[in-house]
Amino acid sequence: MRTSIATVSLSGSLTEKLTAASRAGFDGVEIFENDLLASPLTPEEIRARCADLGLTIDLYQPMRDVEALPPQEFARALRRARHKFELMRRLGAGTVLVCSSVSPHAVDDDALAAEQLGALADLAQESGIRVAYEALAWGRHVSTYDHAWRIVEAAGHPALGTCLDSFHILSRGSDPKGIEDIPGEKIFFLQLADAPLLAMDVLQWSRHYRCFPGQGGFDVAGLLRHVLRTGYDGPLSLEVFNDVFRQSEAGPTAVDAQRSLRVLQETVGLTAPPAPVVPSGFAFAELVTPDAEPVAALLAALGFARTARHRGKPVDLWQRGEARILVNTGPAERRDGTRLAAVGLESPDPEGAARRAEALLAPVLPRRRGPGDAPLEAVAAPDGTELFFCATRRPGLPDWRADFEDTASASDADDGWRVDHLSLTQPWHQFDEAALFHRSVLGLRPQESVDVADPYGLLRSRAVTNDDGSVRIVLTVGAAPTDDTAHAQHIALATDDVVAAARRFRAAGGRLLPIPANYYDDLAARYEFADGELETYRDLGILYDRDDHGTFRHCYTRTVGRVFLELLQRDGGYRGYGAANAPVRLAAQHAVRGFTGG
Amino acid sequence: MRTSIATVSLSGSLTEKLTAASRAGFDGVEIFENDLLASPLTPEEIRARCADLGLTIDLYQPMRDVEALPPQEFARALRRARHKFELMRRLGAGTVLVCSSVSPHAVDDDALAAEQLGALADLAQESGIRVAYEALAWGRHVSTYDHAWRIVEAAGHPALGTCLDSFHILSRGSDPKGIEDIPGEKIFFLQLADAPLLAMDVLQWSRHYRCFPGQGGFDVAGLLRHVLRTGYDGPLSLEVFNDVFRQSEAGPTAVDAQRSLRVLQETVGLTAPPAPVVPSGFAFAELVTPDAEPVAALLAALGFARTARHRGKPVDLWQRGEARILVNTGPAERRDGTRLAAVGLESPDPEGAARRAEALLAPVLPRRRGPGDAPLEAVAAPDGTELFFCATRRPGLPDWRADFEDTASASDADDGWRVDHLSLTQPWHQFDEAALFHRSVLGLRPQESVDVADPYGLLRSRAVTNDDGSVRIVLTVGAAPTDDTAHAQHIALATDDVVAAARRFRAAGGRLLPIPANYYDDLAARYEFADGELETYRDLGILYDRDDHGTFRHCYTRTVGRVFLELLQRDGGYRGYGAANAPVRLAAQHAVRGFTGG
Repeated sequence: MRTSIATVSLSGSLTEKLTAASRAGFDGVEIFENDLLASPLTPEEIRARCADLGLTIDLYQPMRDVEALPPQEFARALRRARHKFELMRRLGAGTVLVCSSVSPHAVDDDALAAEQLGALADLAQESGIRVAYEALAWGRHVSTYDHAWRIVEAAGHPALGTCLDSFHILSRGSDPKGIEDIPGEKIFFLQLADAPLLAMDVLQWSRHYRCFPGQGGFDVAGLLRHVLRTGYDGPLSLEVFNDVFRQSEAGPTAVDAQRSLRVLQETVGLTAPPAPVVPSGFAFAELVTPDAEPVAALLAALGFARTARHRGKPVDLWQRGEARILVNTGPAERRDGTRLAAVGLESPDPEGAARRAEALLAPVLPRRRGPGDAPLEAVAAPDGTELFFCATRRPGLPDWRADFEDTASASDADDGWRVDHLSLTQPWHQFDEAALFHRSVLGLRPQESVDVADPYGLLRSRAVTNDDGSVRIVLTVGAAPTDDTAHAQHIALATDDVVAAARRFRAAGGRLLPIPANYYDDLAARYEFADGELETYRDLGILYDRDDHGTFRHCYTRTVGRVFLELLQRDGGYRGYGAANAPVRLAAQHAVRGFTGG
Repeated sequence: MRTSIATVSLSGSLTEKLTAASRAGFDGVEIFENDLLASPLTPEEIRARCADLGLTIDLYQPMRDVEALPPQEFARALRRARHKFELMRRLGAGTVLVCSSVSPHAVDDDALAAEQLGALADLAQESGIRVAYEALAWGRHVSTYDHAWRIVEAAGHPALGTCLDSFHILSRGSDPKGIEDIPGEKIFFLQLADAPLLAMDVLQWSRHYRCFPGQGGFDVAGLLRHVLRTGYDGPLSLEVFNDVFRQSEAGPTAVDAQRSLRVLQETVGLTAPPAPVVPSGFAFAELVTPDAEPVAALLAALGFARTARHRGKPVDLWQRGEARILVNTGPAERRDGTRLAAVGLESPDPEGAARRAEALLAPVLPRRRGPGDAPLEAVAAPDGTELFFCATRRPGLPDWRADFEDTASASDADDGWRVDHLSLTQPWHQFDEAALFHRSVLGLRPQESVDVADPYGLLRSRAVTNDDGSVRIVLTVGAAPTDDTAHAQHIALATDDVVAAARRFRAAGGRLLPIPANYYDDLAARYEFADGELETYRDLGILYDRDDHGTFRHCYTRTVGRVFLELLQRDGGYRGYGAANAPVRLAAQHAVRGFTGG
């Protein structure tokens, strides 16, 4: 179906908004009145600009406080409407959105509302314009879609139909099934928005917290299915009021918006893009660093061996068991301190995964290949992390390690080390977007968000995982915005014996993050331990957690650049990430100067 | 009364929090358990640190899920409690906060709750500790203060009392009058927090949006009056969970916190600091600039005359009517572009105003006096703006202009020009603080907040005014955080004939901000104008607004540095600031390159 977006959903001048919508692949726009008023372009110039950009103007919006008014007020409304219809003629916009009255003058009289909307439609028809009447969730007398439809039906005017808006319908808890009672040709327009499930005043919720379908908690797809059953064939249009989108660059927001509609269309069966290829493990994590030495020392102390070197680039492969870490002392323009720059995802079908990503507008990266390099499919995540779809020892698929030359033998068998999860700091304004990206592009499943108290600000954290937990990515963001780069990324390594691993690391000269004694006193209050167990943890700085399934023990290395490593052991099916311990870990990282510097 | 603050209300390490609380003048603290767990200091060291800082440890908090439990769960809770009482003994904390159970194991049995709390109090008493039981607003079975009190009363244990928390009481809409039924000696502790009036899930509201008394919408003073009538004589303690405070510097937050308690104590009649001295007008606005020429050119085109020069500093006084603007080409360290740096407030009692400010912890500025300068009392507002309390031509008071030497004659009579309002951009995290500061220190009245859509992000704006509107300061902040310095400050000048003023400015070579034609087409749709009226506005770039009282016409100069000027005319008692036109003005400022640069 045709896709459209309201200009109010994007940041910037009207020209910037139109350009961003066009580049992201939208077919049309809703022109929000304030965007037009504030533009130095005449209506004719806006019309021409849209045509140049391949955009139709699907809706002019909104007209307010038009129906169920005393005669004098209604006369004023018609006067305004005449001006606006003339404007729409110059603009080439064929449909106008009329919101249900919030005016204190409006009366509770459906017959009057129908009569006046009919009169408005008469006037519109003269200019070849259609009127789409919508129930605002906070309308004075009309606040539900079925009520708005009854009034439209009563008016029985060919130029009068209804506009459905998923936010207004779902935020009120209305049952969208009744949409199927409306003839499709009388649904003049469909506006789509999602929102997080907040128990808050609906007007505030609507004006500040809407988001794109799939980013929030509404069943937008379910609503769309009802709409499609009516035979509606107008555009799917996004109308999102969001404080964050208002100040984010229009280009990326428009791409996220278009992606959300592509996923939505797939969900309801309107389109069939390449199916998601869920990654089945981590092939590698790649650190980029201006100075390989501190990273190498850390990995060596952890018992990693440098097993191979890239044939064409300054990239070393370090390995222990199934945990593989690339250390890239790459080109100078990327030398902004040690950081976790890329993730190799073990993929059953790397090419299919890349095709899926491309169909959902993930930026496909130019292949980093020298002559003879194995083809590597890669895309960029919203935070800029490079995601490689690759295969390790899979029959029939090129092995990404073919680009590497062995320098030492890996002891592949050793004690079950593997990457348990990666933690990636997200830019403040991209948290919801990141979750949608990982779900739709990679087929991972977002878990609940958790709040974590850092001494210098609250963090919000959300994991995306595959079904068997062999891929876990933890997305972290400051709950209130701050200098994002202050937060560290990390690689968490699972082992079958974290105590032995920690001891060995320390014996090899590694320094573990010291944890305050008070923490262990509290553990003693909360749990009973075997003799000496707690002392071992206290000695090594091992943190402890327990859930309904099992136990979790973990400790931390020093931070290098923006990155630190975690050693952990999951027992009995523990599912979390030790979030209860995160405040203590974060405070300890702040406290120990050596753990926060580069 | 003694003042206390929960460490969770402040940002940073425990040591930083304690230091900030002490410096801001608090007598004691509540130690939040997680702050202790994360601290490398032992309990004994924390105790000693508090003693050094002159702080008592008034409360250890919180103990959770202790009462109304099945026997096995309760045994575990007692085991935890033994550990915590031992910790409190080391810490020297005499009172522990116990929150009503949220455990799924808790049963709805007040007798059992009383029995178990009694057993806990027995244990506490052995260590000389008192137990303060508090109803969480989201407690599983106990969620109101009167219910918690009934259980405490039933237990009848000398070491068991109740803790009252204004957030938990007022967020539930409970009537605080019933507090007077509780004997004061059984109120073991009083926690105070305010919150904005949001219709949202109470747990989310509590954890993220609390603020200091006077910053939100609760009647905290009313609640405190009820508490005082019981004879309660424990500390007034602030417990505020706020995402923004968590990441703001602890020092200033602690000062704001202490200020809020001083205002609260004054409100309920516990203290009588010097009374507020409400300013009665603007004496001057002061621009600091590295280059006076563009500012001088702008003021000259507006018809201002340079009437005087400071005797000791590079400061010129520009004047038209009662509008006075100081142009300061001051010391190099302040040369960060032209900005509105200081405001002279006409004060009936400058010394009294300064004493009031000092009592409420406003930073008193060193007097900028040379030998022979008139004494000028000044304090810093939260955004760093210098506020001078001064007198212009007031018998018996030194005139601030005595420091200036006349260079030209001012035409004081001319056509009623005066400063209508000043608009000051606030740092993102200080918006509520700024409103409280202006209300309590200056005695101004905060008006409603309004949202204003800038093309690149939403702004929030709130005016503080005196009763007759002769002092109006508009505080503006980005609704979502951004680079605060991007937003401009402005001086709005009232005239009795804005059309003539605009024409004269243009004739003198001044450039007015051009407003898009679409805006005037919309005005034509909304209002009826006299012949030619709209064309005049369109020609000059004058914006138009109307409220229930009267009309408002205004236009804008170009921006110099961070500052622009507004010319306006209020008729018929119009009360607002033309907020409806702000999106168009902001877009026009972005659009015209010349209006956004320095």
